Amino acid sequence: MQNIRTDLAVEAHEMSKREAKNSASVDGVISDVEKKGDITVTRVKITNDNGSRTLGKAKGTYITIDAPNLKYSLETYERACSVIAEEIRGLTKIDSDTLTLVVGLGNREITPDALGSSVVSKLLITHHIKECSDNEIFGENISGVCAIAPGVLGTTGIETADIIRAVSEKVKPQLIIAVDALAAADIERVSNTIQISDAGIQPGAGVGNNRDGLNEETIGIKVIAIGVPTVIDAATISKIKIPKELSPLMVTTKDIDLVIERAAKTVANGINLALHSRLTLRDVESYVS
Amino acid sequence: MQNIRTDLAVEAHEMSKREAKNSASVDGVISDVEKKGDITVTRVKITNDNGSRTLGKAKGTYITIDAPNLKYSLETYERACSVIAEEIRGLTKIDSDTLTLVVGLGNREITPDALGSSVVSKLLITHHIKECSDNEIFGENISGVCAIAPGVLGTTGIETADIIRAVSEKVKPQLIIAVDALAAADIERVSNTIQISDAGIQPGAGVGNNRDGLNEETIGIKVIAIGVPTVIDAATISKIKIPKELSPLMVTTKDIDLVIERAAKTVANGINLALHSRLTLRDVESYVS
Amino acid sequence: MQNIRTDLAVEAHEMSKREAKNSASVDGVISDVEKKGDITVTRVKITNDNGSRTLGKAKGTYITIDAPNLKYSLETYERACSVIAEEIRGLTKIDSDTLTLVVGLGNREITPDALGSSVVSKLLITHHIKECSDNEIFGENISGVCAIAPGVLGTTGIETADIIRAVSEKVKPQLIIAVDALAAADIERVSNTIQISDAGIQPGAGVGNNRDGLNEETIGIKVIAIGVPTVIDAATISKIKIPKELSPLMVTTKDIDLVIERAAKTVANGINLALHSRLTLRDVESYVS
Amino acid sequence: MQNIRTDLAVEAHEMSKREAKNSASVDGVISDVEKKGDITVTRVKITNDNGSRTLGKAKGTYITIDAPNLKYSLETYERACSVIAEEIRGLTKIDSDTLTLVVGLGNREITPDALGSSVVSKLLITHHIKECSDNEIFGENISGVCAIAPGVLGTTGIETADIIRAVSEKVKPQLIIAVDALAAADIERVSNTIQISDAGIQPGAGVGNNRDGLNEETIGIKVIAIGVPTVIDAATISKIKIPKELSPLMVTTKDIDLVIERAAKTVANGINLALHSRLTLRDVESYVS
Repeated sequence: MQNIRTDLAVEAHEMSKREAKNSASVDGVISDVEKKGDITVTRVKITNDNGSRTLGKAKGTYITIDAPNLKYSLETYERACSVIAEEIRGLTKIDSDTLTLVVGLGNREITPDALGSSVVSKLLITHHIKECSDNEIFGENISGVCAIAPGVLGTTGIETADIIRAVSEKVKPQLIIAVDALAAADIERVSNTIQISDAGIQPGAGVGNNRDGLNEETIGIKVIAIGVPTVIDAATISKIKIPKELSPLMVTTKDIDLVIERAAKTVANGINLALHSRLTLRDVESYVS
Repeated sequence: MQNIRTDLAVEAHEMSKREAKNSASVDGVISDVEKKGDITVTRVKITNDNGSRTLGKAKGTYITIDAPNLKYSLETYERACSVIAEEIRGLTKIDSDTLTLVVGLGNREITPDALGSSVVSKLLITHHIKECSDNEIFGENISGVCAIAPGVLGTTGIETADIIRAVSEKVKPQLIIAVDALAAADIERVSNTIQISDAGIQPGAGVGNNRDGLNEETIGIKVIAIGVPTVIDAATISKIKIPKELSPLMVTTKDIDLVIERAAKTVANGINLALHSRLTLRDVESYVS
Repeated sequence: MQNIRTDLAVEAHEMSKREAKNSASVDGVISDVEKKGDITVTRVKITNDNGSRTLGKAKGTYITIDAPNLKYSLETYERACSVIAEEIRGLTKIDSDTLTLVVGLGNREITPDALGSSVVSKLLITHHIKECSDNEIFGENISGVCAIAPGVLGTTGIETADIIRAVSEKVKPQLIIAVDALAAADIERVSNTIQISDAGIQPGAGVGNNRDGLNEETIGIKVIAIGVPTVIDAATISKIKIPKELSPLMVTTKDIDLVIERAAKTVANGINLALHSRLTLRDVESYVS
Repeated sequence: MQNIRTDLAVEAHEMSKREAKNSASVDGVISDVEKKGDITVTRVKITNDNGSRTLGKAKGTYITIDAPNLKYSLETYERACSVIAEEIRGLTKIDSDTLTLVVGLGNREITPDALGSSVVSKLLITHHIKECSDNEIFGENISGVCAIAPGVLGTTGIETADIIRAVSEKVKPQLIIAVDALAAADIERVSNTIQISDAGIQPGAGVGNNRDGLNEETIGIKVIAIGVPTVIDAATISKIKIPKELSPLMVTTKDIDLVIERAAKTVANGINLALHSRLTLRDVESYVS
């Protein structure tokens, strides 16, 4: 695993088991698999420091939703939205009093990194409407949703974690959902897999510099991270030496522009359904263009 | 002036004088005009409450830069960048210790409202580099710049002023520069005029609901607002009744997509030159794509 | 009618009747109205030269589909797709041997003019697949569809009609469907109305210079024009004098970027259903992202 | 060379020499190198069938312009524009009577494939203005330029070569310049290298299926191809097996969206200077946004 970078706990777990000569288990890691139609849900729980060290991930639950037909099938897309909503609600309780801050991470000007900001643009935002006395659109029992796409350090000059912390202190949400593009080791996972985790986030961690994370311990608010692999690390598939002064390479699929769009819609509507349990996917698709 | 909405103090001043039967002056308003090549700089100072009430604008200095050839002439563009930089530096002192937070207001998904976020994407961001001990790129004496494009209430659910306040408290800048698209009364001003003001901003004020403003008094930080008219209000040129339930209309030029691009580049490089006085326009254009 | 420019025959007809003191009819113009749920279909037939002269439109059938809820309701969108398909098939016979060339007119870099190229990007293109011996995707009985978005004279330097003629001579379609953004007189029609006509097209006619049209007479191929109003002419709502040297103004809705997207999807899927009668809207939405 | 796909003759030549144990030359291939400031120009001439077979390229001249600082330096950009113009004019005579058709190849919806259509949008188009009797803008002695971005087979259903042939027969240009994104073997060449060739083009050749080419022999018009590598083939850097049913992978740089923009501007202005020798780069940048 040392040389292969993956943001997916399920891949890290597989590699660990492989390295340990296919031993059935890693101490501190529990996993189970469930089929929901053509979608497979794998839950990996990292329960102690050994598990955390071995998989290179923080303690917590990592849910992997594999939907191999997501790109081609409307039915898989619809089912994936429901499964995402169920799994989010399995991690935390959401009712009409909950205020959720959704954070779209990543750089919107780099196509495979634009997932987070694209998801934010497809959300049903309600916080400002709830505050109006006479909200006729959604009725009384709608949960509060607000959202930001803060940008990345290179374009803002500000640590993304600082922006999230600042806005969070002002808005005082009960829940933060952070959406980001991930790197996977297996090219077959690009755009077909959604990972949902309650282990918090480390904005900027992807580029090598580990800044302090945002999680329930550090900020006192439940943080659910949702990610979709959109690239595989060039180092993962190659042995070539890449000169340091070059722009970092990325390996992705030729249709990434279209793939990001579909993946963003799936994640956004999964979140919309999770936060607004009274609405159907059809309602949500009518409200949000 | 009652029925004509304009964000430009210079237009409000002209209208006031016209209503007052071409009286030469309005009490509490001082103005002067300066030519810089083919660019005209008009400075309107609103000095008392009568001036403020008559023009419908907060007290402060409003500088209008008219560059009728901006769209066609590279030389006008270059001169406009310099003039913007000079006028910003005329309003406040900037040195290598200054940290500036630039805020790009408006909705990036609505073309004529995307000026602010477009400007932010063209800035030379230095705050995170200054903090590195060995900044080889810009040398020692570079001022600190960070930036955000917070979005609008309808897409974030959060008052834009609250996001700015929150980030500002975290970053602690000495100067805030806020960039926004404006509405003008005169179609000839669309995309040819830049207004720079130290009177603060009221995000969301444009749509009718006056929320509390951000200015030196309310947040203890100098706030410079820079705007470019990109639309004229439909009500301004028309007598038709627009049904309430309809989307608000806008009147703009057919080439607005291209015009916004040129205007954003002009404002961004004007700011870049103001904040990094050691750099030339050529330097800036090399650093920022 | 002289001073009000509209591309919609139904508006021209109303204005003519109004000018003729609400006389019930214009010689050479027959119209009827049909309700399909919340959608109204008005068919205006211009049958002789007097009708053509009075309405300022070529002879032929003009079908206007009014779907006031298109922007908000998924059901209206789905019904509008079906109605468009029915009305296209009412104008011409399409079977699995038909080859259709769809032409997306307009300038993709100007938001309200990008409808045509946006529609083309959402079509189910089959011509090149039909030619493969073993087309496993769509089965045997699929009609042939190819498409181009030729650009506009100002960006290509070539008359758009010449490009269409050239490609048409090479491809030899049995049917041409041309899609374009239109100007309406009534702001309530912007993005809620679809006009379908068999009277041919005059690319570039909108900007004042009437070049020779493309229709069944001039090129020997049935030409169906589909348009959606995305702007109202500034002259229509205003009495102001617009200086000649200025960019032409347009009046449109603030949410035009989003509105174009929904309108393009409706027209594209209406065409997809018309040309591939064996497919459902669900099939089409699965194939085309 | 068998397993490494490159569109660059200069790379194919190097590989051939390497395979032939560093023999100094390949029969049928002549090359020379010239320095122009920080830009290196390598001219590879394939003069007979052996050279063509060995390098896997058609007979003709292939000029490679290496500008390693293109991404960072405005001066390199300006010099590169001049060098491109000189090299184009070295391949063919252009005067004010010449009509050139520029063709932007590739799929504008796939970022690294959008180079061609992006270049076309930055050209100084004159053909339709020359035909006006009173062209006041550019004066008498301007060469004629028209342009199309025909799309790709997958989105049009029409062989791109057929569209080019059709438009060419209608417009009757004396010169065709075709611009396309290329694949390189060496990642250091991505976006720093421009190849100019008079050996014609094979649209769609990149994806494996060799359709009949467009060159002076087959269509009787000089065809100059200009390309910039924007990707390296995944197969080139990797030994992994990519499942057939997956979307083809691509390897590119993370900043490809920005890189394409700079490369497109360089190629477009190189062409603008070649076709309008009376204009300076400054003129061109004023005319074209």
